[in-house]
Amino acid sequence: MTSPIGGGITAAAGFRAAAVSCGLKADALDLALIVADEAASAAAVFTTNLVVAAPVLVAKRHLAESGGTARAVVVNSGCANACTGVEGMVAADAMATAVSQAIGCRTEHVLIASTGVIGLHLDSTKIARGVADAAIRLGRDTHTAAAEAIMTTDIAPKEAAVRVDTPTGSFAVGGMVKGAGMIEPNMATMLGFLTTDAAVEPDRLRRALSEAVDDTFNAITVDGECSTNDAVFLLASGASGVTIDEAAHAAFVDALREVCGTLAREIVRGGEGATKLVAVRVTGGGSDADARRAARAIANSLLVKTALNGGDPNWGRLLAVAGRAGVAVEPARAQVRIGPAVLFADDTVFADREPAAAAHLAGDEVEVQVDLGTDGDRAATVWTCDLSAQYVRINADYRT
Amino acid sequence: MTSPIGGGITAAAGFRAAAVSCGLKADALDLALIVADEAASAAAVFTTNLVVAAPVLVAKRHLAESGGTARAVVVNSGCANACTGVEGMVAADAMATAVSQAIGCRTEHVLIASTGVIGLHLDSTKIARGVADAAIRLGRDTHTAAAEAIMTTDIAPKEAAVRVDTPTGSFAVGGMVKGAGMIEPNMATMLGFLTTDAAVEPDRLRRALSEAVDDTFNAITVDGECSTNDAVFLLASGASGVTIDEAAHAAFVDALREVCGTLAREIVRGGEGATKLVAVRVTGGGSDADARRAARAIANSLLVKTALNGGDPNWGRLLAVAGRAGVAVEPARAQVRIGPAVLFADDTVFADREPAAAAHLAGDEVEVQVDLGTDGDRAATVWTCDLSAQYVRINADYRT
Repeated sequence: MTSPIGGGITAAAGFRAAAVSCGLKADALDLALIVADEAASAAAVFTTNLVVAAPVLVAKRHLAESGGTARAVVVNSGCANACTGVEGMVAADAMATAVSQAIGCRTEHVLIASTGVIGLHLDSTKIARGVADAAIRLGRDTHTAAAEAIMTTDIAPKEAAVRVDTPTGSFAVGGMVKGAGMIEPNMATMLGFLTTDAAVEPDRLRRALSEAVDDTFNAITVDGECSTNDAVFLLASGASGVTIDEAAHAAFVDALREVCGTLAREIVRGGEGATKLVAVRVTGGGSDADARRAARAIANSLLVKTALNGGDPNWGRLLAVAGRAGVAVEPARAQVRIGPAVLFADDTVFADREPAAAAHLAGDEVEVQVDLGTDGDRAATVWTCDLSAQYVRINADYRT
Repeated sequence: MTSPIGGGITAAAGFRAAAVSCGLKADALDLALIVADEAASAAAVFTTNLVVAAPVLVAKRHLAESGGTARAVVVNSGCANACTGVEGMVAADAMATAVSQAIGCRTEHVLIASTGVIGLHLDSTKIARGVADAAIRLGRDTHTAAAEAIMTTDIAPKEAAVRVDTPTGSFAVGGMVKGAGMIEPNMATMLGFLTTDAAVEPDRLRRALSEAVDDTFNAITVDGECSTNDAVFLLASGASGVTIDEAAHAAFVDALREVCGTLAREIVRGGEGATKLVAVRVTGGGSDADARRAARAIANSLLVKTALNGGDPNWGRLLAVAGRAGVAVEPARAQVRIGPAVLFADDTVFADREPAAAAHLAGDEVEVQVDLGTDGDRAATVWTCDLSAQYVRINADYRT
């Protein structure tokens, strides 16, 4: 049984967190530190962007060197430390070293992340001071402050946690994210931090994270971007005494998926200028990849996103985008549904149902579905938000 | 020698045109007819969308049946005749039949195109009346009216023509287009109509059109959409007496490219809410496909298009989008230029050059360049426009 609980990134036993203002941002929390009482299993997924920020390179290297274990994760906002050349690598290494000295652990047991302006050099002195400050403030009532410290243009901190009761005891999974939706200010950096007190071997942890991310963080889109800094980290302390073996694997992934799904949808809901959370469902696909690709094309279409913003049940745009997505479609057997209303099926338009569809689109959580009409039965869901004039204003004027 | 001339779609000898209002749109020209005095060579390129409108299917069939010859092209605005099932095919056939009867030619010598609302049935009675009316108004001073009749949300008619002087005589190439930029109202339908009085065999005509379109109409983007109705037609009357053989092929393609390029850039300039024409240049690519793909990703990025709208020389977005475009990039050797200012090179940021870049972006024709930094020297240019809040308003409220 799985129940939502409080506690965010420190809901799981064996973890403490702190948030401080180290001066990268004016008068705001800008550095979060998460520390495991003992070396924990660790896994991460990183951006697929070929232009990779220095902290991503360092975190990847440390995970490889440590064989998938870690004691701490440190993250700053206000500076992405991306496109910063050799100096950026030096600053990223220094950030990890500062944590290893402050809490007394091996450098490769420190994972790091940064978010903020591209091309700006990270001030290692400020980071070192902030880390030292954070290390003496670690606690379990600071999880919301930590979620605040990683925010950029996010409207509110985003955290979630669940408790899972199993025959052999209960364990927790918790976490926090900073949103995408064209964030601070160059690309839509998405950072996620997850902890659990289940005992999970590094290999299994990696597999479980990958499975959970695929249906959650990898199934959302705000503007189709993938930043130089995107990363999701998961640490497992084992402090609950519950061990995840093959029999418990699915339940563990389900719990991870619940936390990641909640956080992922919060990111979309908080997309810049967004007024609606939109579930784009594609069915009747010839393959999983086709279904996902069509759903993603629809979720990223300007035509679809602007129609949703206007509350317009413009089913023709949904079908036409599916048609140019590069997947198998059988137009004569395709269907389009908006909320409760099937607006196109069997090559026939049901214009009289548009009012019902429009009423559905007036809400702030909406669902649209395109059945591709192939002989296949593969399906996929991608979450997106609408595109508002407000989004354009935010991103046109960001740095000016 | 190539010189711009007037005359649009009837600049080439052997063609007449007419524009009428047949009642599909209220009080506006909505039907254009182009007629060749005698059967002309004909070629066309069509949408790659798998959801294909009925007129596209009929035009393709007629071109195949006629072996690449045609007497007439008829096009209506106000109704796309797409997603209209069997009835739509009947209406498309009736449209061609109406022309064949009005001008006295074989049905397969009539090419057809439609643009407008998806899912709406085409009124064959109005079309037949409009065609009969147009057939008695054919002339050579009606080219601008014809360009008006194919408009949807276009701000102004778009036409262009050139005269080419060769050692064996001179010939003309002319044409008209209706814009993309999220047009009437479901997808960004782009329709292009071209004529020439050079004598060109159908096979060569097809090849020349494909070559010219690749660098022009296929190298623009307003919102990354490809509609159910997109098509470009080219008819060659031979009335100039100049025959295009292998020796003259390149010059002919250059002339076509000049007309198509002018019209393509007019489409981008007229993109909904657009305030700038933007040339996105990618160099240092490992292959032509990589260069084109990176340029297209940048040209379609919301982050890039909004920054351009705001006049923000946000070079980090350009580089980061190249990094997620799925092409080979060497970040350490990559370069980013906005107008006259190289803002990033050799892993170094040149922030002091941002004012020069910002000054360039204040204009209404701007150029940005990303060098991918690979060992390759392949390059591509894609034209796009900025994304304004006005665009969102137009498309959010289109049908409401």
